[in-house]
Amino acid sequence: MRIGLDVSGGDFAPKVNLDGLKLAMKELPSCTFYLFGNKEEVLEHPSFIDVDKERIQVVHAPEQITFKDNPTRAILRKPKSSISVGLNWLSTRKIDVFSGTGNTGAMLVGSIYKSTTIPGVIRPCITSTLPTITGGKTVLLDVGSNADCKADVLSQFAVLGSIYAQHVYGKKKPKVALLNIGEEESKGNLLTIAAHELLKSSDEINFIGNLEGRDIFTGIADVIVCDGYTGNVVLKQAEGIYSLIKKRGINDEYFDRFNYENYGGTPILGIRGNVIIGHGISNDIAIKNMLLHSYEVASSGLAKKIKKAFK
Amino acid sequence: MRIGLDVSGGDFAPKVNLDGLKLAMKELPSCTFYLFGNKEEVLEHPSFIDVDKERIQVVHAPEQITFKDNPTRAILRKPKSSISVGLNWLSTRKIDVFSGTGNTGAMLVGSIYKSTTIPGVIRPCITSTLPTITGGKTVLLDVGSNADCKADVLSQFAVLGSIYAQHVYGKKKPKVALLNIGEEESKGNLLTIAAHELLKSSDEINFIGNLEGRDIFTGIADVIVCDGYTGNVVLKQAEGIYSLIKKRGINDEYFDRFNYENYGGTPILGIRGNVIIGHGISNDIAIKNMLLHSYEVASSGLAKKIKKAFK
Repeated sequence: MRIGLDVSGGDFAPKVNLDGLKLAMKELPSCTFYLFGNKEEVLEHPSFIDVDKERIQVVHAPEQITFKDNPTRAILRKPKSSISVGLNWLSTRKIDVFSGTGNTGAMLVGSIYKSTTIPGVIRPCITSTLPTITGGKTVLLDVGSNADCKADVLSQFAVLGSIYAQHVYGKKKPKVALLNIGEEESKGNLLTIAAHELLKSSDEINFIGNLEGRDIFTGIADVIVCDGYTGNVVLKQAEGIYSLIKKRGINDEYFDRFNYENYGGTPILGIRGNVIIGHGISNDIAIKNMLLHSYEVASSGLAKKIKKAFK
Repeated sequence: MRIGLDVSGGDFAPKVNLDGLKLAMKELPSCTFYLFGNKEEVLEHPSFIDVDKERIQVVHAPEQITFKDNPTRAILRKPKSSISVGLNWLSTRKIDVFSGTGNTGAMLVGSIYKSTTIPGVIRPCITSTLPTITGGKTVLLDVGSNADCKADVLSQFAVLGSIYAQHVYGKKKPKVALLNIGEEESKGNLLTIAAHELLKSSDEINFIGNLEGRDIFTGIADVIVCDGYTGNVVLKQAEGIYSLIKKRGINDEYFDRFNYENYGGTPILGIRGNVIIGHGISNDIAIKNMLLHSYEVASSGLAKKIKKAFK
C-alpha cells in the first residue's frame, strides 16, 4: 500500500506531519509513504532525521496553498502545491490514497477536479465519525461540502454513508436515519419531508426513519443523513461542547472519545480516488490516526465499492 | 397581574401543574391565577387542597387536546379545551398571560388564530434560552415553529430576539449573530448568505456577524438566529448531550444549567398576547419556572414592545 501525505498542510506543518508519520509507520509496517511538500525543508527537518527512509519517498512540491487561499483559484494557479501534486499522483495511480490537513476547500475542489466524481454521484461529500454512548461509532454526513442539498442528494448520502459504515467500520446492514425535527414522517422542512419519501422507498439502504437531535449520540443509527449546513452545525456544536467539558476539568471516558484526534480524518465519498481530509489543527496523534484511517479506507477499496453501487 | 395556566396540559397533569402553581404562588404574592381545565377534577385533586384559593379562579374547560391531536383540527373542533378557553380569555383581556405545557403545535396554532399575529410580523416564532459558559444566557430562535424560512423571516427573528433579550433578560444592545458554517460573510447556504446581507444592513439590531456551532455556548452572542429546523436540531442535540452527561454521572455546575427545568418555557414572539409554552415532560419545578417566566414576560410588556417595533 502506497500512502500519500501532504507534509505542508495544516497549522503546524511540517513538524507534526513528520512526527505523526513516524508514529503511523510503526503501526503500518507494510506500507510505503509518499510525502508531498518542499523537499529541501523536509530533508533538513529535525523530525525527519530518524525516519525509516527506505519506506519513504519525498516528492517536491514547493508551492503552498494557505488557509486564506480561495480553493478553486489555488488549485488552478498553484500546480506545484503539495495538494495539487499529491492529487496528480493519486489520479495517475502512483499512490493508493492521498491524505492531508491543508485547506479543506482546496482538498475538496482539487479532488473533484483531479480525481473526478464517480458517474451517477450527484455531489461528493464528507463525513464525521461520532462516538456513541453504546461504545460504537455513527457516521454523520454531509458535514459541510454541500451547504444546500436537494432530496435526491440526501438520498445518495444515505447510500454513500452506508457503504462507508459497512466496508470501513464493518457494520452489517447499517441502520440509516434522517436527521429531522420529529419522528413522524410528516415532520420536517420541505427538504427532509421530500428526502424521507425517497429514503423510505429505497431498497439500497436499511432506512430506520427520522432521528431527532437528542438521539445523535445514542447509537440508534449507524449513519445519519443531513444537508451540509446542518451537519456542519451539529459537528461544530459537538466540538464546542467537548471543549467546554475540558474547560470545566471534566474527565470522562465517553466524552474523551469526542476528541477529534481519535478520528484523524474523513474520506471524500463519491470520487474515484481515496482522499482523506484531516483537521487543520491536527497534532501528531491526529496525523497518525489520519494515516491509519487512510490505510483502512484504501484497503477496504471504498472508492471501488461506491463505483460499483452507482453503476 | 393575572396569570393563566393550562392545568390539563403536559404528561403529568394536573398533579405537577398544581404542585408547580403552589411553588410559584409563594414567589409571586401579588398575582392572581386562572386555571383552565376540568373544574371538578381540579377542585377534588389532593394537590389543590392546600392552595391559597383567594388568589385562584378555576375556569371550566372539559375538553382535552392530547399530544396526538392534529393542532389545527384540535383548535377548531375542541372549543372547550383548556388551550382554546385559555387563549379566548387572553384575547378578551381577562388574563394578562397564558401558559401551558400541552400540545405545542396546538398552543402555537391556537395563539396565532386567537391572539393573532402582530401586523408586520411575517412569522411568529419560539425560542430557547441556552446557558453560556460565561454565566449568562443566549436566546436561540427559531427552534421549531418555522421549519422553512426565507431570509426576511430570519432578519425579523433577529429583531424579535433582540427585543426579548433586551426587555426580559435586561441586555442592553443585545449582540445578534447568525448561525452559520463559517465566519466570513460569503460562507453559508443560500438562506444564510441572503440573511447575512439583510442583517448586516439592518439598523434595528446590533449584528455581530456569523457564529459557528462551536460558539453557541461561549456567550459571544446574546441572540442566535437560525431557521426552525436547524434551531430544533441544535436544541435537541444540547438536550441529548445533557442527558448523556447525567447518564455518565457527571455533576457540574455549568452543565447542570442545561436542565430544561430552569427555564420553564418560551414566549411565542410576534403575536399580540403573551403566551408561554412549556415542555410536555415538565415537572413541578419546571411549571413553577414557567409561571415565573410568564410573570417576567408579561411585566416587561414584551408583546407591546414588539408591536411598537413593527409599527
